[in-house]
Amino acid sequence: MDPFKIIEVKESVFANNNQQADALRQRLRGEKTFLLNLMSSPGSGKTSTILRTIEQLRNEMAIGVMEADIDSAVDADKIAQAGIRTIQIHTGGACHLDAEMTAQGIDAFGTGDLDFVILENVGNLVCPAEFDTGAVKSAMILSVPEGDDKPLKYPLMFSTVDVLLINKIDCLGYFEFDADAVRERAKKLNPDITVFEVSAKSGQGFGAWTDWLRGEVKKWNS
Amino acid sequence: MDPFKIIEVKESVFANNNQQADALRQRLRGEKTFLLNLMSSPGSGKTSTILRTIEQLRNEMAIGVMEADIDSAVDADKIAQAGIRTIQIHTGGACHLDAEMTAQGIDAFGTGDLDFVILENVGNLVCPAEFDTGAVKSAMILSVPEGDDKPLKYPLMFSTVDVLLINKIDCLGYFEFDADAVRERAKKLNPDITVFEVSAKSGQGFGAWTDWLRGEVKKWNS
Repeated sequence: MDPFKIIEVKESVFANNNQQADALRQRLRGEKTFLLNLMSSPGSGKTSTILRTIEQLRNEMAIGVMEADIDSAVDADKIAQAGIRTIQIHTGGACHLDAEMTAQGIDAFGTGDLDFVILENVGNLVCPAEFDTGAVKSAMILSVPEGDDKPLKYPLMFSTVDVLLINKIDCLGYFEFDADAVRERAKKLNPDITVFEVSAKSGQGFGAWTDWLRGEVKKWNS
Repeated sequence: MDPFKIIEVKESVFANNNQQADALRQRLRGEKTFLLNLMSSPGSGKTSTILRTIEQLRNEMAIGVMEADIDSAVDADKIAQAGIRTIQIHTGGACHLDAEMTAQGIDAFGTGDLDFVILENVGNLVCPAEFDTGAVKSAMILSVPEGDDKPLKYPLMFSTVDVLLINKIDCLGYFEFDADAVRERAKKLNPDITVFEVSAKSGQGFGAWTDWLRGEVKKWNS
């Protein structure tokens, strides 16, 4: 038996994605499962951030990971190797997940016994920002090598997320990157955004991020 | 007067993007203008690669740059500051350019007297790969910090481009990245792909890349 399922999901034929997202959240609330939608460009470190996050929380709660990709099972492999329950969702070429696709993934995964599920969205700073997946909270990663101008160029993503993780801060000295400028630009778009500076490589900053997560999971599941 | 125009373009209402792309190529052929479509994730170094490329070719040919973004004029500013003719195209939120949007950009820019135009597409490894823009050749950038698994996860982009630039090779020692594995994965998807390893920061590898470009521009414009 494979260590994880691979399923194909299809975009919603319904017009009202927001309604479907609300319905999924209500269902997750009933099941006491906190769903986090994690988004970023390709290669910002979503999977390594998930691995580091789980390392700090796995003894306190039941965690699962839904990996969404256009193709391959590279990320689900990594998660399964860490002994975490995972499912690989293929989007059939689609550049994002909508609420219906997420619900299909939740159905196939079976999340009733999980306290905390992380959805790794398709690597893309544009399209995933346009769709409420039904997650309870959403976070994005911007990594230092990508540059500090990204809030100016991809404003919708920075406007919609609850949390911004500035990742790969271990290589701040190597790239021209002004973290304060990113904070300022992100806050201008989204005054309520919470920002953490982290390094999935070294573990730096993960205490504050997982404290935030722990609090949110507890609030939702209580 | 502003140093460059900013225009809003709209997605095509026509079904046949390929037909429109062919028509645009035919027009460019008549005008002796070589158009390159440059694609990558956000933050892979498209703009700095363009600046470095122009530095090596600007004394030999008339060059212009079309910057496509959802918002801001950050990139067009950088290009204009280098004394290069540029135009900023805003896509109205769209995650890619189609042939009609590119043609609108070409019209507004006025490329009749240019030998070589670089179109910097929206930062996105998914959607731009699905649309022929009408460019003569297309290239993508994968930067070292993004990781060597990207051909597995975003196969369409690697399958459709003529050239893959592996950028930021100056920081190969800092990140786990197997350039040979990337070449092999890309060639498996696209046996005809030409691969160059470059650093827009140091200029390394730009001789071979601009030699290739010079040859293609000459062939097209002869």
